[in-house]
Amino acid sequence: MNPEALAELGASVLSTDADVTAAYAHDESRLTGRSTPVAVLAPASTAEVAACLRVATREGWHVIPRGAGSGLSGAANGAGEFVVLSTHRLDSISSIDPVERIAVVQPGVVTGDLRAAVAAQGLFYPPDPGSVAFSTIGGNVATNAGGMCCVKYGVTGDFVLGLEVVLADGRVMRTGRRTAKGVAGYDLTHLFVGSEGTLGVVTEITVRLLPAPRPPLTLVATFRSLTDAGQAVAAIAATGSPVSMLEIMDRTTLEAVDRLARMGFEPGTAAMLLVQSDEPDSAGVLAEVEKLCAGAGAVDVAVGDDPEEGAQLLEARRLALPALERLGDWLLDDVCVPRGRIVELIELIEGVAADEGLTIGVFGHAGDGNMHPTVIFDDADPHSREAALRAFDRITEHALALGGTITGEHGVGRLKRSWLARELDETAMAVHRAVRSALDPDGLLNPGNLFDPA
Amino acid sequence: MNPEALAELGASVLSTDADVTAAYAHDESRLTGRSTPVAVLAPASTAEVAACLRVATREGWHVIPRGAGSGLSGAANGAGEFVVLSTHRLDSISSIDPVERIAVVQPGVVTGDLRAAVAAQGLFYPPDPGSVAFSTIGGNVATNAGGMCCVKYGVTGDFVLGLEVVLADGRVMRTGRRTAKGVAGYDLTHLFVGSEGTLGVVTEITVRLLPAPRPPLTLVATFRSLTDAGQAVAAIAATGSPVSMLEIMDRTTLEAVDRLARMGFEPGTAAMLLVQSDEPDSAGVLAEVEKLCAGAGAVDVAVGDDPEEGAQLLEARRLALPALERLGDWLLDDVCVPRGRIVELIELIEGVAADEGLTIGVFGHAGDGNMHPTVIFDDADPHSREAALRAFDRITEHALALGGTITGEHGVGRLKRSWLARELDETAMAVHRAVRSALDPDGLLNPGNLFDPA
Repeated sequence: MNPEALAELGASVLSTDADVTAAYAHDESRLTGRSTPVAVLAPASTAEVAACLRVATREGWHVIPRGAGSGLSGAANGAGEFVVLSTHRLDSISSIDPVERIAVVQPGVVTGDLRAAVAAQGLFYPPDPGSVAFSTIGGNVATNAGGMCCVKYGVTGDFVLGLEVVLADGRVMRTGRRTAKGVAGYDLTHLFVGSEGTLGVVTEITVRLLPAPRPPLTLVATFRSLTDAGQAVAAIAATGSPVSMLEIMDRTTLEAVDRLARMGFEPGTAAMLLVQSDEPDSAGVLAEVEKLCAGAGAVDVAVGDDPEEGAQLLEARRLALPALERLGDWLLDDVCVPRGRIVELIELIEGVAADEGLTIGVFGHAGDGNMHPTVIFDDADPHSREAALRAFDRITEHALALGGTITGEHGVGRLKRSWLARELDETAMAVHRAVRSALDPDGLLNPGNLFDPA
Repeated sequence: MNPEALAELGASVLSTDADVTAAYAHDESRLTGRSTPVAVLAPASTAEVAACLRVATREGWHVIPRGAGSGLSGAANGAGEFVVLSTHRLDSISSIDPVERIAVVQPGVVTGDLRAAVAAQGLFYPPDPGSVAFSTIGGNVATNAGGMCCVKYGVTGDFVLGLEVVLADGRVMRTGRRTAKGVAGYDLTHLFVGSEGTLGVVTEITVRLLPAPRPPLTLVATFRSLTDAGQAVAAIAATGSPVSMLEIMDRTTLEAVDRLARMGFEPGTAAMLLVQSDEPDSAGVLAEVEKLCAGAGAVDVAVGDDPEEGAQLLEARRLALPALERLGDWLLDDVCVPRGRIVELIELIEGVAADEGLTIGVFGHAGDGNMHPTVIFDDADPHSREAALRAFDRITEHALALGGTITGEHGVGRLKRSWLARELDETAMAVHRAVRSALDPDGLLNPGNLFDPA
């Protein structure tokens, strides 16, 4: 890379320090390749982002846009010679408007901080990915992140009203609106949401907010088999119950969480469901759920009205991945199937684990059919590694065959780029490439992500 | 147009009968130009749509896709030599799945019929544009139609999970998914929603459904000025009250409706709000609304629990446009402003009416800030016509200046194609054109719509 062109960006934006660049070699995914960038660009304004991209286009640099680097699909990983464009200095909440119930934020704002800031004004930004405490709203927009709230409230994209975006060549544009409704032109906002940094760099996000919800009631149900728990989930989902959370953890996950956090879970529990309702009649909602759990053979069902106990249980659920990480190397899947097919998926996963002789922890957003089977393996052992990759592929394949998708909320990135063409048809893939070329003709933004170079 | 190429499409698809083609010369908009197509194509399957578009691309025909023709922006109007592709024979509901709460439908299904079919299974398809009894789901998708439910439930696009689309060159593709969540690739689904037939022809729509709602309670409030009513709307909106409907009608509209349907409205009422709640605690929700209406100076507020009376009032609201039509020629606007600025918009509209010496009926989805000021004029009088066009432009301009949009739910079409570049910036317009070119390089689909040829 031309050092003079790099220097053009200025010392406040550019870093080529080896200690810095090394920290930008990969996100939190596994087996997606890692590579140290030539430089890290940290623009602090839209104008600086535009300047970075103008130079990048002129010089033909590959640019990997990056939020907090907490992604789980390798979408912030580069290869070959590239620069990382980090949004961490674009970190202010520009405005919170309680009358219109919208907030305008920069992409580098940590999502949990945004949630806290709007909560202080009696408002609610629902999306709550597992990484909510450290991932940024820009990364959430890039992957259309989900979380535990989705079963009732929807995903990140459902709360994005408009964007400011810098295109690959440095041109700046606005999409969307600040009004409740609006249909002027194409919905470019949602074209950018979930585009994983391949179409432009988002520099400002207008999100819609809700009034603060009621404090939720929490129900915990335990089961003697994962299939029973899946049956309960399918039954709850089929009623359209307005639960605000419906999460599942299997025995492997529960034991791992217990070792990490000493939650005192009943030993031998095969699966646990965590259910919340923040409806006006939350007790009534959970009473119905209780019946459905009992009908599916729950060992024990308890509704607690202590918000602190509820928060603690949520915390346990959030620890699922960190806890499983301690069991060995891991490969985290993120599939989503129709709600009525969760039991089939669970049984297929159990079959894969048995076939391959692997531990596979299962947890996830059961109410959406969005499961995170986590394959535990030993990366130092080639057989184990191969078995893990096979298991991962078989689970993803099963999800597709059940009418599901290869990714519910983590995105395609590098991890699943060879899978995208298995979910989409040939014409849809061609349209993806045509749209990408229309916006980034030289393919400079996040190359090697989303699309399989093979 | 090459008659042999037309004949290739087959007698069941092709009609060049003058009585037929004349009926396809325009939609329900005014002053958007009208022109009779050379032929009407009525394919009855995706394969037939693909065949039509393959021939059209080969021959370079301009194709105007058309649903029920009930649009209000001229998006189904052509100019010069063109064919209309009508979706009216693609009119079946392929499946309704009560467990997954999704339905798969063809674009020619009347939206009201879809709502009735899913209601028969205890399910709810919320979008309810004013045209719900005769517009089709395909047209609703093309314009991202709204309605009275939006204040609580959102617009058409919020319920579209996936599409089958035929591109301009006849290639067929699927977008989206059948699962609750999914982030595999770009959100092409919502790129097509609201694209007004300029990117492809939608041949199948997968919509998400909700459990049937509770029967709503209805509140009626009357005011001695439109501004007072606007103040009540702003106050209700600011609280984030979960009302399922919040509609406004001014004196002109009320009197017109009363003449048409003898509703017995109190004479001299300057404005009426219609509010519904289908929450579990609907009485509590409406009690709050009642207080806010009283605080804004309501003359009279009444909550009725008779569902029939509620339905009758809704019917009155639905008659707003047909009733205003009887007052003379009309030009219907569709602007949306931030909820907190409704009062300003209303006062500006009253100013425009006074300045231009015109009657302007005001009604609309006040809870979303989406108003339909309807300018009444005499098309035979050039002065009156000019004044009407000026009034229309000034209202649209005021909405933009208030931070609003040129179209809340009717779309751009031909009516507002010169306005799109006033709402969007230069780069956003360039991206619109680039996306359009990527999908329809010859610009054969709905030319002259959305984009200003000037």
